[in-house]
Parts: sequence; C-alpha cells; structure tokens
Amino acid sequence: MAMVCLSDFEAYAKKYLPKIAWDYFAAGADDCTTRDENILAYKRIRFRPRMLRDVSVVDIRTKILGSEISFPVGIAPTGFHQLAWPDGEKSTARAARAMNTCYIASTYSTCTLEEISAAAPGGLRWFQLYIHRPRAASQQLVQRAEALGFQGLVLTADLPYTGKRRDDVRNGFRLPAHMKVKNLEGAFEVCKMSPSFHDCSEYGLPPNSLDPSVTWNDIYWLRSLTRLPIIIKGILTREDAELAVRHGVQGIIVSNHGGRQLDEGPATIDALVEVVEAVRGRVEVYVDGGIRKGSDVLKALALGAKCVFIGRPALWGLAYKGEEGLQDVLRILQDEFRLSMALAGKYFVCKWVLQMFLHASPI
Amino acid sequence: MAMVCLSDFEAYAKKYLPKIAWDYFAAGADDCTTRDENILAYKRIRFRPRMLRDVSVVDIRTKILGSEISFPVGIAPTGFHQLAWPDGEKSTARAARAMNTCYIASTYSTCTLEEISAAAPGGLRWFQLYIHRPRAASQQLVQRAEALGFQGLVLTADLPYTGKRRDDVRNGFRLPAHMKVKNLEGAFEVCKMSPSFHDCSEYGLPPNSLDPSVTWNDIYWLRSLTRLPIIIKGILTREDAELAVRHGVQGIIVSNHGGRQLDEGPATIDALVEVVEAVRGRVEVYVDGGIRKGSDVLKALALGAKCVFIGRPALWGLAYKGEEGLQDVLRILQDEFRLSMALAGKYFVCKWVLQMFLHASPI
Amino acid sequence: MAMVCLSDFEAYAKKYLPKIAWDYFAAGADDCTTRDENILAYKRIRFRPRMLRDVSVVDIRTKILGSEISFPVGIAPTGFHQLAWPDGEKSTARAARAMNTCYIASTYSTCTLEEISAAAPGGLRWFQLYIHRPRAASQQLVQRAEALGFQGLVLTADLPYTGKRRDDVRNGFRLPAHMKVKNLEGAFEVCKMSPSFHDCSEYGLPPNSLDPSVTWNDIYWLRSLTRLPIIIKGILTREDAELAVRHGVQGIIVSNHGGRQLDEGPATIDALVEVVEAVRGRVEVYVDGGIRKGSDVLKALALGAKCVFIGRPALWGLAYKGEEGLQDVLRILQDEFRLSMALAGKYFVCKWVLQMFLHASPI
Amino acid sequence: MAMVCLSDFEAYAKKYLPKIAWDYFAAGADDCTTRDENILAYKRIRFRPRMLRDVSVVDIRTKILGSEISFPVGIAPTGFHQLAWPDGEKSTARAARAMNTCYIASTYSTCTLEEISAAAPGGLRWFQLYIHRPRAASQQLVQRAEALGFQGLVLTADLPYTGKRRDDVRNGFRLPAHMKVKNLEGAFEVCKMSPSFHDCSEYGLPPNSLDPSVTWNDIYWLRSLTRLPIIIKGILTREDAELAVRHGVQGIIVSNHGGRQLDEGPATIDALVEVVEAVRGRVEVYVDGGIRKGSDVLKALALGAKCVFIGRPALWGLAYKGEEGLQDVLRILQDEFRLSMALAGKYFVCKWVLQMFLHASPI
Repeated sequence: MAMVCLSDFEAYAKKYLPKIAWDYFAAGADDCTTRDENILAYKRIRFRPRMLRDVSVVDIRTKILGSEISFPVGIAPTGFHQLAWPDGEKSTARAARAMNTCYIASTYSTCTLEEISAAAPGGLRWFQLYIHRPRAASQQLVQRAEALGFQGLVLTADLPYTGKRRDDVRNGFRLPAHMKVKNLEGAFEVCKMSPSFHDCSEYGLPPNSLDPSVTWNDIYWLRSLTRLPIIIKGILTREDAELAVRHGVQGIIVSNHGGRQLDEGPATIDALVEVVEAVRGRVEVYVDGGIRKGSDVLKALALGAKCVFIGRPALWGLAYKGEEGLQDVLRILQDEFRLSMALAGKYFVCKWVLQMFLHASPI
Repeated sequence: MAMVCLSDFEAYAKKYLPKIAWDYFAAGADDCTTRDENILAYKRIRFRPRMLRDVSVVDIRTKILGSEISFPVGIAPTGFHQLAWPDGEKSTARAARAMNTCYIASTYSTCTLEEISAAAPGGLRWFQLYIHRPRAASQQLVQRAEALGFQGLVLTADLPYTGKRRDDVRNGFRLPAHMKVKNLEGAFEVCKMSPSFHDCSEYGLPPNSLDPSVTWNDIYWLRSLTRLPIIIKGILTREDAELAVRHGVQGIIVSNHGGRQLDEGPATIDALVEVVEAVRGRVEVYVDGGIRKGSDVLKALALGAKCVFIGRPALWGLAYKGEEGLQDVLRILQDEFRLSMALAGKYFVCKWVLQMFLHASPI
Repeated sequence: MAMVCLSDFEAYAKKYLPKIAWDYFAAGADDCTTRDENILAYKRIRFRPRMLRDVSVVDIRTKILGSEISFPVGIAPTGFHQLAWPDGEKSTARAARAMNTCYIASTYSTCTLEEISAAAPGGLRWFQLYIHRPRAASQQLVQRAEALGFQGLVLTADLPYTGKRRDDVRNGFRLPAHMKVKNLEGAFEVCKMSPSFHDCSEYGLPPNSLDPSVTWNDIYWLRSLTRLPIIIKGILTREDAELAVRHGVQGIIVSNHGGRQLDEGPATIDALVEVVEAVRGRVEVYVDGGIRKGSDVLKALALGAKCVFIGRPALWGLAYKGEEGLQDVLRILQDEFRLSMALAGKYFVCKWVLQMFLHASPI
Repeated sequence: MAMVCLSDFEAYAKKYLPKIAWDYFAAGADDCTTRDENILAYKRIRFRPRMLRDVSVVDIRTKILGSEISFPVGIAPTGFHQLAWPDGEKSTARAARAMNTCYIASTYSTCTLEEISAAAPGGLRWFQLYIHRPRAASQQLVQRAEALGFQGLVLTADLPYTGKRRDDVRNGFRLPAHMKVKNLEGAFEVCKMSPSFHDCSEYGLPPNSLDPSVTWNDIYWLRSLTRLPIIIKGILTREDAELAVRHGVQGIIVSNHGGRQLDEGPATIDALVEVVEAVRGRVEVYVDGGIRKGSDVLKALALGAKCVFIGRPALWGLAYKGEEGLQDVLRILQDEFRLSMALAGKYFVCKWVLQMFLHASPI
C-alpha cells in the first residue's frame, strides 16, 4: 500500500490498531460534530492563487518563540503514545528531532519526561501541563521539564473535566495494565491508599484529580514557578485571547482539543481568525485540529497562525512504523506545504467562505 | 447494550415497542420536516466556550414559576404512556419526582389525574389542557387538577385539529382496547350513545371533539376557572408571544408539538430567539422539541429559555425500563448538561449560525 | 396500499405505467435540476403559524377570473393523458368538474376539444395553446375552444423549441400508433404529403412545426381572434411580468414547464415572489410546478398566487384509477390545504428562506 | 448505448480506457475539491429566462482574436492524446477543423506540431507553452508554432511545479514506452546523458525541467520572440488579470488547470466574474473547467467570457471514436448551446447564487 497522503496513514491505523486504541484516538465528544467540523471548515476556505511570482526558491523554515524549525508544523500534545507504538513518546521525540521540528510532550505520556529527553537529546520540545489538584505534583512537573531543557510550557485550558466520548464509555476504556501515566507516578496519595484499582480513573489516576478551579490568576502562579515561556492551549474566542495576552502568556494555541471536549464549539480554523485579530501580533498564535494536507497548513498561516500542530496524524504515523512512520507523515506534509506555497504564489493567500470574499490581496 | 446517550434509548424503543406505538410516538406531520428540523437546528448553533473560569462548582438547579427543580429539564406533555410502559403516567410521575423535576401531565393520559397524583405525592406537576367542545368537560378537568395539587395549567394552542401523521393513517392507529383517555371518561354523550365504537375517533373520543374555535379571549375564561398560573404551549412567533403576555399568561412554551402539527414551521430553538426578544422578561419562556443532549439544554438556556421540556426521550426511557428508564434518561441529560456548562465556562454561551456571529459575550 | 399522500400516487404510477410513459411524464430537461428545484424550493420556505384564531370555519373556495372553484388548485395543461389512462382527457375533465375546479386542456391532448367538452358539460375549462407555424391552425383551435365554452386561453410562452429530455431521447419516445394529437389532425400539409411516418416528429406532427418567432405582439393577434381572457404561461421574471401586463393579458402562470424546458432557471415558487411584486395586483398570478402537499398550496397563496395548478400529480391520479384516481388526488390536496390553513392560523403565513426572515405579519 | 449528453462519453471512457490513462485524465490535485467545484459552481447559477423574443434565428457563431468559429467552444490544451486514441492530437486537429473551432495544442502533445499542422491544414490552432529551464527549447517551440501557422500563443501560468495527483502517484504513472513528448525531443541534454530512464520524470523529461522562476517580465521576453497574440492561461484573481493586461497580453483564459494544480482555489466560473470586471473589455477573456452542457457555455458567456474551452470532454470524445467521437461531443454541445440560448430568450441571462440575485436584466 502506497502511503501518498495522510488519509493513507489513517486507514492503516484504523486497520491495524486495537479497536480500543483506535477509538480512543479517534474519539470526539458527544456527536463528534466539532471533531468533524475542524476538517470541514478547512474545505470551505478558498485560496486566491497568484501567478508568475518566481517560486524557484520556496523557503518554508520558520521560528517559534525564537527557535527555528524546518517548517511550520509541530507535534501537538496527545496522550499515551504506547497505545500506538511500543516505544511510545520516545519514538515521537526522535522523529520530531529528525525532522527538525517541535514536539509538545503531554502530561499524559506513557514515557517519563526524562526518557523522552534522553531519547532525542537536543530536540526542540515543549511540555504540556494539566493542573492536578495536588498543586505540588504540577509544580514538580514544570520544574522537571525546565530542568530537562524543555523550552516551553503549554497549559491546557479546556479540560477542567474530561469530555464525554461515547465510544470510550462503551469500550470501558482503560490503559492496558503495562502502561502508566508515568510522569505522575507517585504524585497522588489516594491511589496508593486505594485497596482496589477500581477506585482509580481510566488512566490509573485518582478520579477527579484534575483541578477544575483553575483561573487566569494561575498563570501568575505558573510564572512564579518557571522562566519558560508559557503558551496557553484551548483558546477559541477573542475575549479569552485578550485575557491571555493581558495575563502575560507568550503564545496561544487555538484548539478545541481535537473536538474531544465541548462538542459544537467552533472549528479551530474559524476561531483562529478572531483570535488573531484580537491579539494584534502581541504574542504568537498557533492552531491545531483538522490539519490533513499541506494546503491546510498554508491556510492556517494565511489566516495568521505562526505554526500549526498535528495530533491524530502523528499518532497514525507512529502506528504505521513508529519513528519512521511519523517522519513519513511529516515529510508528506512538508512536501505538500512547499508545493501549495509555490502554486499559490507564495505570499498571497486568502479566505473565501461560502463564496464570500473575506480578505483581498494587493496587486 | 450500554445506555450512554439518548440515542441509545431511542434505538432500544424502536426495537422493542410495537410498531404501531413506535410510529405513533415518532410521527411527524406530512414530510416530517419540522420534526427533523427541531434537531438539526440545534446542530447549527455554535458555542463560544470560555476558559479558566473556576468551574469546580457548577450549580444547575433552577426555579420555574417559583418552584425549584434539580436542573432545567422537565417532562413535556405527551399522550398515552401506557403504550410505552404498563404503568403509564404513574411511572412518569414517580421518575419526575425522584429526579426532582416537573412533569406536565397530558389531557390524553392513560391514567387519571387522581392516579397520577397518588403515584407520586408531593411531586411538582403541571396539567396540560386541550379544550374540548363541551366546555364543561374542560372546566371540570381544570378544577380537578387544581384540587389535586397540580401547580400549573398548560394550555396547548396548536391543536385545533390533529395534524396529518401519515404513518398513523397507514397503520389505522387506534388505542388498544384496554387503554382509554381516562381523564375524559364520561365527558361526552355522543360516544356513549353511539351504537358502535367506529363512531368514535382513534383515541376513543367522539370525532371532532376538540374545539377549534378557541381564541385569546378563552384565556380569560380559563383565568376565571382557576388560580393556577397559566402557561401557553405552542407559540412560535413574536406576535403571538406579545399577545400571550397581554392576555396575562404566566409562561410560554415555545413548541411545535414535536413537529406533529403544521409541517414546515420553524424549529423551536430558532423560534425561541424571537419569542424571548418579544417577551422581554415579562413572563418565563420555555421550549420543547429536539433536545437530545445536555448541550442542547445549554443552548436553549443561552438563548433565553428558563427551562426545557423533553417529549419523545421521556417515552424512550419509559419504554426501556419504566420509571427507572426515565430516570436514566434524565440523569444522563443532567450529567451532560452539567459537563457542558463547565466546559463552556458556565455563563458565556452564544450562538453562531452558519458561521455568522449573532451574540457576542463581554470579556 | 393506502393512498395517503401524493407520493403514494407517484409510486403507484412509477410501478404500473409503461416505462416510456412514466419517463415521458417524469422527464426534466438536461440534468433535471430545475424539475427537482421546484420541489426543494418549497421545502426551504417556513411558515410562521399563528395560534388561537378561531379556525372552526375554514372557507377554502376562491375565484379565478371571476369563476368560483372549490379550492385554489386547478389542473395544469399536460399532454397525452391517454398514456396514463385509456379515456385520457375525458377522465380529466370529469374529475375536475366533479371536484368543482378548473382544468386547462392542452393543445397536445389525445382527445379533441369537442370530446373533452362533451365528457363533462358545464365544467370550468381553459384551453392551452401552442402557436404552430401555420397560424391558421392555431387560429382555428382558439375559435373552436371559444365556441365550445372554454373560458380562458392559456398561451404557453416557454416552448419555442422542445427542451432536451434525455430519457425521451434514449427511449426514442413516440406516441403509440393508436394515439394522436387529435386537436391538430389535418392541420399540417407536410405530414400528409410525407411518404413515411418518420418525417414527422415524435408526436406525429411535422418536425419544427412550433413557431419560434412568436413575440409579445402576437398577444395582440390572439386578442383579435377571441374575446376569451388571455393567460400567459411560462413567465419567470419581473421584466416579463411587466411586459405581460402591458400587453393586456388577464392572468400570468409562473411556470418553468415542470423543469422540462430550460434547465437551471429558477424554481417557480422563488420566481413567483418577484412576479407578484412586479404585477402589483393588476392581473391575477398563478403558479405551477412542485406542488406536492396542501401546505405547498398555502405557501404559494401566502406569496401572492391566486391559485396553483398541478401537472404530474394529476397524471399520477389518472394512472391510478382514471377519473376516480384524479379525484382522490384532488381530495387529498384539498383536505391537506384546509388543515394547513387552520393550523397556520388562516391568514398569517410568511416566508423564511435559510433562516432569513422575509415577510413579517402584523399582530 | 446512445450518446445523448457528455456524461455518456465520460462513462464510455471510464469503461474502455486503461485505468492508468483514465486516472491520469480524471485526476485532480489532492482531494479533488477544485476539480469537482468547477462543475458544482455551474449548478449554483440560475438563468433568468425571457419569453417571446423571436428565437427563430439563433446565430451562435463568434470570433476569438478576430477569427470566426462556429460556436464559442474550443479545445483546451491537454496532454498525451495518444493515451485516448492512437492517432492522438492529429485526430483532435481534424475534429476541431471539421467543426470549425479552435484547438489549442499542448506542449505535451504526443504528436509534433508539424504532424498536427499537416493533419488538418488551415484549421484554427493556438499553441500552448510551458516554459522549460533551457529557455532555448521554449524559444524554438514558439518559433516553430508561428512558422507552422498557429495563430495564438497560450502561456500556461499555473504550473511552476506539477500538482500532486494522488492516483498518478499510486499508479506510478508514466507514459507508455511508445509515446513521447515529441515536441521536446532533443531539447534536454540531461536525459540524453542519463544512463537510465529512471533519471527522467514520468513524462520522459528530465526531472524539474519546468522553469519555476518565470515572472511577469517573461511576457516581454515572449513578446520579443513572436508576433503571435499572447494569451495567458491560469488567471484566477482580479489582481493577476490587471497585471496580465498591463503586461500586454491579448487574452486571458480563466483556468485552474482542471483542478489539477492547487486544490481548493476557486471554481473557474466563480473566478471569471472578478476577472471580467477587472479587465473591463481591454482584452478577451475565456474560461475552461467544468463545462459539461450547452447551458454551461451560455452561463460563461452571460458572465462575460468570449468563448469557453473544454478539456476532459474532448478526451472522452477521442476515447469514444477518435476524430469522429470528438465531433460528436462538439456537436452535442453546439446543439445544447443553441437550444439553451433560444430557451433563455437569447441575450438575457444572469446569475443567481444561492437564491441571491446578482445581475438584473433590463426590460
């Protein structure tokens, strides 16, 4: 089977992953409307391609928070990579370094931050944080990440509680016995004390361990813990974008958690427009969700994103051939992005929604 | 089979109910366009979720006409619950009380108001009224309801004649011999005098027994009969909302009778917007039709409803396990509603229709 | 099989008519986009139903050009009724008279005007005219119709040439040997002189016998031939509506010939709006195409039509049981129309297109 | 099988062509969104047909750059006609001449320009140019074309690199051994020097032989090489249309290369509107992509195109019966176009998009 585009990897993963793992990765909240909208919204955007602009050289490198990456596509934080490939996040880290891009490691990794660091020394990595009720656990994670050379701290803002993913409920999803949320081992007393595994949640953590009382003021608390730049992930409105800037973050990831949290919020590429407008260049804005082709990357950039992050496609790559498969995915996106940029005439890309002209480009 | 969301109950009911009962409950008028639009219209509305708002406590209790209910979902009036479960409306009354919410008992119940009251003493209940040609029959019903402790009188305004539900015509729908519109037993002379059952309509009532000459002035007549608050059900336009307020009702249920009356009127969630605008807070506004998820409840509230009512989903719950099944349905909606509210950031919910921004929320 | 709505008759006709006849009646031009749009456009219109308006009496009679009919639905001109039922147009005439409505007999009838008149003396009938190259033939037809008591002359304006109906071409559609365009027998020399039937067109007429040079001035010519009111059929724009009024017609039928002529023109119910606006009440406006339910009739009236005409549904009725089947179709439409009118609150009907509010109704 | 409309030829070609050839002709870039949009966009446009305008004579001849053609449909440049029919472009040239229309021969022909000229002396032909890195090769082509009597030079602007056509990648598309890009034989040193065929691209040319550094200034270079009128193909925006006029071209073909280059740019019929507005009659504007019916031609003309060009339908005609099949395709389009023009009332055609009225026509 030729791996020509990202859907080929999706088809492979669906075929070869255990159903419970496929369902977990594919899951969206409730009716999966937002998960699917993330993709459909890209298809509604039209390029305005420009001709005869000398595209013999197409430089697709960019910088995010000062670090150069080979092209504006990083790896979004997703959990439990060992469900996709035995080496888990270690493979992810290696692939990201090989392709010279950024990998955001999740709190819910099945490898420790130390293992991830050791697997690919020198790679550009950010650390994604969920804030748990024992704040000390989160504090310790942040400080470990900084000490290990992670270069950014990504605070996920859209998961005070886990969204309702029907297939996971039907499957009774739990991590297999040999996998753990390793970064949090020892962080909770409850689970230790609990006589039976059943008192713990499906990820092997105590139930309700996430802290739903987090507010904007906790950005100051995080700031007090680390000198790392803080990127907030999960912003979907201009109002929250303004609040994020005012509270001093360095970056914003426009995200709806792959449609896994609140169903029927906006597609991320649609929300990106208002966030970019609100931010007015004061901090960098990124976007994840729904990226399936190189031209999606170009659309996101044309609408103001500095870089995009891929979630599920990275997992499909891992499922295909681990580190190598993920590199294949990234390489395809890279080639498609470079080609789209050349065919669109490089700079001049704009948005048509339902035949309505949104942005015009100067001659 | 795991019962994870309301569609699971729908699938169960479709499988296990007699076809004639399923068809009767599922029926919509003519092409069923409005019945289906009720659901589709919710899917076109987009949340604008807000982040980091401390959602550790989410209080979902509310009050309707002064009575507290555990969350803003009540049971809409629907007929013939014995078609779904042997105990019929008695089970419905018990489930509503157990979940501490409001149950609107229908004129077309297969249990008497007295049986319903006795089944769940102390429960919050309203009584739904059709006005029949012998006005004395309706007067007697209203007064029985008041005497039995029902706390509201719901006048259905959209059924001067019964809509054309094709499947009911094809099935030759009639109540099974052992079920009756018990509340109206003895109310009509015609049927008694009639030598054959065939002179009666499909519900065992005389044909054309509904009074199609009802007008707004009959609100004054009802007011003269009872001290109960009067809620009018079936309003779909700003003009009628204004008339309802002027005629002194205490509440309005925006409803199209589940799409069973006039086909190709508006979806109720769309009509809600203009009714709420017209009413300007002078009376409480509720809505029914198309509620299938907790987030639908949140959308209705965000657009101005004080509470929603569920019709068919309650019947599916009854069909599944009677009182217990209906509690399951309510509990799922409750959990989903609480979660949606938390994930949307509690207060800040708005409406996007076809990517168009309708309501903005302040920072 | 219960005949509950018009689609039941359609299904019957599709099953029992010879394929070549079904295809001929069902045919639309090219991709059949307009044929299907005629129906879809009705589904996009939303009622604004009003409540509590005393609908105990619903009078659905109306007058067209001064003649009373039992409800605002007449029989549009369609050709070759013997393809649907042996008695052909004679059955149609009888059914229309029995239901007390208007039947527009086509030039392309398989019975003569004399046979049609004799079949149902006293019925309200108009005569539909195509203008053929030998103008004398058309003149004679008009004068026969007037002499026979037809009360209106309907000039079809949208058929200078026959549209391209792919299935008819594939089927090599021709009238069966025993059917003829009887009204035109003897009208053309060419066919008589022609040694072989193959020189004649598929209807047994000479090829290119229709006159494509007809202009607005020919209205004056028609006026000079007859005192009958002239109704022009096939108008789709405000510009042509204005021209029709200026040239002195008494009525306009907004029509696209059932989508059989130019594909991808507007649906008739959409075109009706601008025609009604342009006409400003100076002449009566009717509409045909896409009427499948009583509520479609109500929508057309709400948007300004004085009466609608049905084409294919009448043929389905004939195919079902001749005169009796057509009466069934009309009776169903009548019942549905009366019910829709009552449920919509009688007068207050308006148009929503894609959620956009077009016409508001006063309180 | 009756060949009634263009889709019949499409079905035939899909059935009888080798899969690799069918896939190559059918291919669109990436998700094929733009390829399919080219067709769908026509279906969204509505005519405003006018009646009674004397359409007894419908003259469909037109002129492009001063040369008369029998109707406003020419043959767009497409590659490798021998994949469709053994005689390849020679058949195309003969069919175009027989139908008295214009044929744009592609650089990527499988016959030489000399063979094409000899096959149909006196036919109206333009030559389509890709600019390759060895500019001398392109210069020689232009001068050969002019010497052979080609009457226009069409510069393709949208192919600095070849689009990503997934099926071609999957199929490992290559020209069969006995076919060559004959016009370029001997033009490249690299291929000759290359020891193995595999160093060459799928068309038997050196990889990356196209020159992606072409800019607007190269129009001046082309102008210096030839006195032929220059037509630029691939313009999709008003900005580029203005640039084209300023750089002195004689014509513009609005084209997205049949959706084979950048996916998710605009449909050509949508882009036509803004190009025509920008050009304000200073040069002739043509359009290709998505033409499948005579009424599509009329829509394009109504929106300002002087002539349209067909790509894939011409190949389907060749695949059916070579020169004769292509004539069939053209004749069907011609008949359909003439009929549409008559039924639309000749001049008065306009655009409705999603029920919105764009252009009104005077009475």
